[in-house]
Amino acid sequence: MSRSKLNRLTFAAAALATANAIAIASSLLSGQARADEGMWLFNALPKKQLASKYQFEPTQAWVDHVMLSSVRFNSGGSASFVSSNGLVLTNHHVAADTLFKLSTAEHNYNEDGFLAKTLEEEIPATDLELNQLISIEDVTAKVNEAVKPQMAPADAFKARQAAMAEIEKESLDKTGLRSDVVTLYGGGRYHLYRYKKYTDVRLVWAPEAASAFFGGDADNFEYPRYCLDVTLFRVYEDGKPAKIDHFLKMDPNGAKDGDLVFVSGNPGRTRRILTSDAVEYQRDTALPRTLNLLRRREIALQQYGLEGPEQTRRGRDDLFGVQNSRKAYTGMLAGIQDPSYIEANRKSEQETFSTLKADPKLAGLAGAWDTIRDLQSKRREMLLKSASLRTQLVGFAEKIVLMASDDTKPSAQRLREFRDSARQSLEQELFSEVPVYEDLERALLADELSRLAEDRGINDPLVKTVLAGKSPRTRAADIIAGTKLMTAEGRKELAKQGLEGIKNSTDPLVKLIRDMEPEYRKIREATEAIDEQERQAYAKVTEAKFAVGGDSVYPDATFTLRLSYGAVSGYESKGKQVPAHTKLGGAFEHEKVHLEKDPWVLPKSWHAAKDKLNPDTPFNFVSTADIIGGNSGSPVVSRDGAMVGIIFDGNIESLPGDFYYSDKQARSVSVHIAGVLEAMRKIYQAGHLADQMGK
Amino acid sequence: MSRSKLNRLTFAAAALATANAIAIASSLLSGQARADEGMWLFNALPKKQLASKYQFEPTQAWVDHVMLSSVRFNSGGSASFVSSNGLVLTNHHVAADTLFKLSTAEHNYNEDGFLAKTLEEEIPATDLELNQLISIEDVTAKVNEAVKPQMAPADAFKARQAAMAEIEKESLDKTGLRSDVVTLYGGGRYHLYRYKKYTDVRLVWAPEAASAFFGGDADNFEYPRYCLDVTLFRVYEDGKPAKIDHFLKMDPNGAKDGDLVFVSGNPGRTRRILTSDAVEYQRDTALPRTLNLLRRREIALQQYGLEGPEQTRRGRDDLFGVQNSRKAYTGMLAGIQDPSYIEANRKSEQETFSTLKADPKLAGLAGAWDTIRDLQSKRREMLLKSASLRTQLVGFAEKIVLMASDDTKPSAQRLREFRDSARQSLEQELFSEVPVYEDLERALLADELSRLAEDRGINDPLVKTVLAGKSPRTRAADIIAGTKLMTAEGRKELAKQGLEGIKNSTDPLVKLIRDMEPEYRKIREATEAIDEQERQAYAKVTEAKFAVGGDSVYPDATFTLRLSYGAVSGYESKGKQVPAHTKLGGAFEHEKVHLEKDPWVLPKSWHAAKDKLNPDTPFNFVSTADIIGGNSGSPVVSRDGAMVGIIFDGNIESLPGDFYYSDKQARSVSVHIAGVLEAMRKIYQAGHLADQMGK
Repeated sequence: MSRSKLNRLTFAAAALATANAIAIASSLLSGQARADEGMWLFNALPKKQLASKYQFEPTQAWVDHVMLSSVRFNSGGSASFVSSNGLVLTNHHVAADTLFKLSTAEHNYNEDGFLAKTLEEEIPATDLELNQLISIEDVTAKVNEAVKPQMAPADAFKARQAAMAEIEKESLDKTGLRSDVVTLYGGGRYHLYRYKKYTDVRLVWAPEAASAFFGGDADNFEYPRYCLDVTLFRVYEDGKPAKIDHFLKMDPNGAKDGDLVFVSGNPGRTRRILTSDAVEYQRDTALPRTLNLLRRREIALQQYGLEGPEQTRRGRDDLFGVQNSRKAYTGMLAGIQDPSYIEANRKSEQETFSTLKADPKLAGLAGAWDTIRDLQSKRREMLLKSASLRTQLVGFAEKIVLMASDDTKPSAQRLREFRDSARQSLEQELFSEVPVYEDLERALLADELSRLAEDRGINDPLVKTVLAGKSPRTRAADIIAGTKLMTAEGRKELAKQGLEGIKNSTDPLVKLIRDMEPEYRKIREATEAIDEQERQAYAKVTEAKFAVGGDSVYPDATFTLRLSYGAVSGYESKGKQVPAHTKLGGAFEHEKVHLEKDPWVLPKSWHAAKDKLNPDTPFNFVSTADIIGGNSGSPVVSRDGAMVGIIFDGNIESLPGDFYYSDKQARSVSVHIAGVLEAMRKIYQAGHLADQMGK
Repeated sequence: MSRSKLNRLTFAAAALATANAIAIASSLLSGQARADEGMWLFNALPKKQLASKYQFEPTQAWVDHVMLSSVRFNSGGSASFVSSNGLVLTNHHVAADTLFKLSTAEHNYNEDGFLAKTLEEEIPATDLELNQLISIEDVTAKVNEAVKPQMAPADAFKARQAAMAEIEKESLDKTGLRSDVVTLYGGGRYHLYRYKKYTDVRLVWAPEAASAFFGGDADNFEYPRYCLDVTLFRVYEDGKPAKIDHFLKMDPNGAKDGDLVFVSGNPGRTRRILTSDAVEYQRDTALPRTLNLLRRREIALQQYGLEGPEQTRRGRDDLFGVQNSRKAYTGMLAGIQDPSYIEANRKSEQETFSTLKADPKLAGLAGAWDTIRDLQSKRREMLLKSASLRTQLVGFAEKIVLMASDDTKPSAQRLREFRDSARQSLEQELFSEVPVYEDLERALLADELSRLAEDRGINDPLVKTVLAGKSPRTRAADIIAGTKLMTAEGRKELAKQGLEGIKNSTDPLVKLIRDMEPEYRKIREATEAIDEQERQAYAKVTEAKFAVGGDSVYPDATFTLRLSYGAVSGYESKGKQVPAHTKLGGAFEHEKVHLEKDPWVLPKSWHAAKDKLNPDTPFNFVSTADIIGGNSGSPVVSRDGAMVGIIFDGNIESLPGDFYYSDKQARSVSVHIAGVLEAMRKIYQAGHLADQMGK
């Protein structure tokens, strides 16, 4: 998954709290997951904990069924199969990327919603790839074998990448399945994930954004909520609805207070393995930098939107994503800026060191913490040295240009994103007919050029080359006016010409990327060398954690399928008890309390159907399941393996979940499936689809 | 003027362009003002230029009349006397600070406007101080006398401050007038300004924000414009309308295309004297930092506003100010990020050096450029070391606590803001009944604590002390809950207790400031030492400029009265001619073009009066006069010394004006006095006030 997509992922958040930092940190660092903590591997589920706390023992059939019913949106989210004829249920905000790409100045599917009355009316998405996880295989030994102790970090990194690419290639050739080697425990384990891919994905039904994102940025990460944050797609094969063996049944009576529920989805990233020194680097350097960049982009997109209603529409998807990330990162940083958190962390590390020192076989592992500490200052040095400009268009150009150079080498020696086994997915991304807006690209490129100049200073050689003697605004305008890469056709054409064509290209954007390429590769290589050293160190940290915590250790999130579990449960906030559930009728009250002012305006469809709706239908609910961005759209599943809801958010107390878990106040937030079905039938004339669900 | 006020100043902008950077820069650096450039001292007007370009020779009576009719708003803006009975005309956005302070959840004078039908209905402003400049005296020799060549910079700074404070004290005692020694030419000259003060200032009439700020943030710095950005106050003495000898006559037929006009106001700050090295420091370090802080505050205020309509109201004035500054600084930075600008600058400096070297008496001056270059890296080191938290409440607390320590010393040895001669104005600021909002202060303080922790790292000793083991949010909540400084009474009470009381205070905010005081003073002293060294260096740069440019050299803006001049003149933009004037009727068309969507919604009063209005009345106009933030509200005056308009903005091309001037596209933007009078009479039932104006 590309970095830009990972950034889009920081959507919902994980179920963790700021409050009880001391207990949390020590549980984490001793490596033992307590309460309902954990994003578990499907091949290493926490059977003991489930049996002892919930008297639940999943059968292999149950596990396989949930795994095979789960779906990953490669654009950055989760979902599930919900019918035998290919229906896939995800969040509206996961679908938003597609809804925006399908929209035009005339049809705004994001704002106005969409309903296909027949199969013929279902609209093919532009560039979606959906993945269904088929199998997991441990390949740790094979990956580590390639790395020899005496290798310099940069060489070790390359050797490891090559080993991974070879495993993937071999698997792809053998099975025809998408094959990804996943780095787990920060480098402690390597697993091969095989996926069935679906690339003919069609839009079936979406409610209006005003209902899906009711309460907007103001309500985001808040609870109680009243959001119909769902959208239906359908996967096709050979031009027909795909026949799906494993799909979820519907249980509209499920997810009652206290019920055990499971979340099967793809949490994007957590960093709970980080040592205290690494957390301090995040706290004092990396996150502040990220937040500055997010705020900068947020303002740039707001300014662009002021230019007119069409500009507002064009920028909205990005703006929502950025606002969401900014709010998430702010909460995350606030969580780790609590001095008591890091204090407890350090104390717990000291305890770990004592345990390690007591055992001669483990004593050597403690050195890994020192290695990681020393690497943080190297990271700090690298931070401002990026040689990338972050816009959609530049991202396309960068990949095409770098790919052309790398394609002259064997697959295993290329940058990881250019390996053969990932080529099909990459081409889907680069050559799809997605809208690229000239004015938006011009505005963002100007801002990015300005940012690069600020980061490096205008006298920096790279900046001099990039600006070519012009101001950022003029230069951006020139590049956008001159490039042919705005269209899929232009991008295909360039890629077809290969390295020679690119070298001779007069396209100003291609020339820009060519100019930046040497510096980009230099920085990339230096970063990869740091990554490799950290990987080796975290492998030791993982060993230490297994030694202390036994089989209650789960790996950090990696945007691969995980199972979380917890109880449907309200919580206390500001001295009051917040109930676990909201009801459909509550949406109208919530609108009234906020004087029916934007963003608390329900769509007309809701008011028209108000009398027909059962106001007591459960609408949203919270549970203690451990989630994070990327889990958006994950099915919430009962003991019986039936669907009771769909994850769409975490509450504000859950935001530090990137770094630690708590079940005190932090909750994951879901749409209840009863609310979804009631709304489909009574508000959206989508009864014919509701009837297909679970069958 | 306090720093917080200077920040509020970056309102309108100066009339300068990005385009013709080369010509501009060389004209500046040779020290010669060309075209209509210049913010001229009233005691050193550009008589030659006016005579040769405009055949205008101001008499001393004309100069005195314009000077004495001009008014400074100490809250950060300009204005003028417009009647013999004390009426003062300024911008709505200059008045906004007062309009917000007078507003409550029930009466929103900023949004809804205000009209006093009788004198009795006029509302006293909470904390305004208006200044009328009475005289200017050159005291350079006296100030420089105090500084001996062998003094260390920190000592030299103190000696100079002491000399300035003594001159001011002596003048105050002698004349009873507010007496400020103003540093001109970055330290090249010192002038004593004496002001008559007005502190009983009452609100008379204000239009709705929707008319004053029509087009909002989107139209800000744009042209054509249709804004009634005006508000009327009246100054009182002894409880009665003050009798004013010098006030402006109205000339509704003035400011025709090509007419010579003058702007008499208080430009806040320009930095045109900066050497290339100093500009590079601004470009690569200081301005990016400022922009990060502005964007951070903008997002924090937006988030606060999302909490409800009352929060939106409470935060709006700050939010507008911050958005305005962010837009201004963005344009400023864009201007100096043009590599051709700094290249031309450097080339021109080389030419200056050649001239200097050719004259043995001047050759030594060139060393000043090296001194300034070396000082920039010291500035860079200081940048992240601030020990201040920027909120209104903390600002109050900081001043009261520092003042108590300083008051144990003689006036001349205190920090400049605590000198005796400035005490009355400072007390007006600290002890007025202005609204301080608990929830807003809590939100901003939490963000500022977080910012301090990011800047210095959580392990920094000051940060440890300040956070006291708590997270920024918890700490902010504790401080706000415990402090008594929210009210004027609480602040007066603390100040009355003096140093002993403050030392024993258990108020958490007082203790916080006490904890920060040593570091604050350390940094302040280090900064002042750098300032002093720059001051001495810029005195030499100024000498060099006078040597090269003769009497066509004007000093950078210092928020003191200046006279600018220029022609009413349209300009070319994107290949089209933009006419100099807009008309009242155009406002309705502008609303229609933008689909009557916020922020393009004219108030009801306008629609109700539409048929009565003469649509051809001039409304807004542009001229080449050289202005910058702080000029907001400046009268635009004809050859005959009559009022033809009032400055309220600069166009987007004028934003780099902080650093250089151009008349190619950059324009200052004014409300035409004919539009003001027509609107007062036909829309606002304020004919009785319009009748008083000019009489």
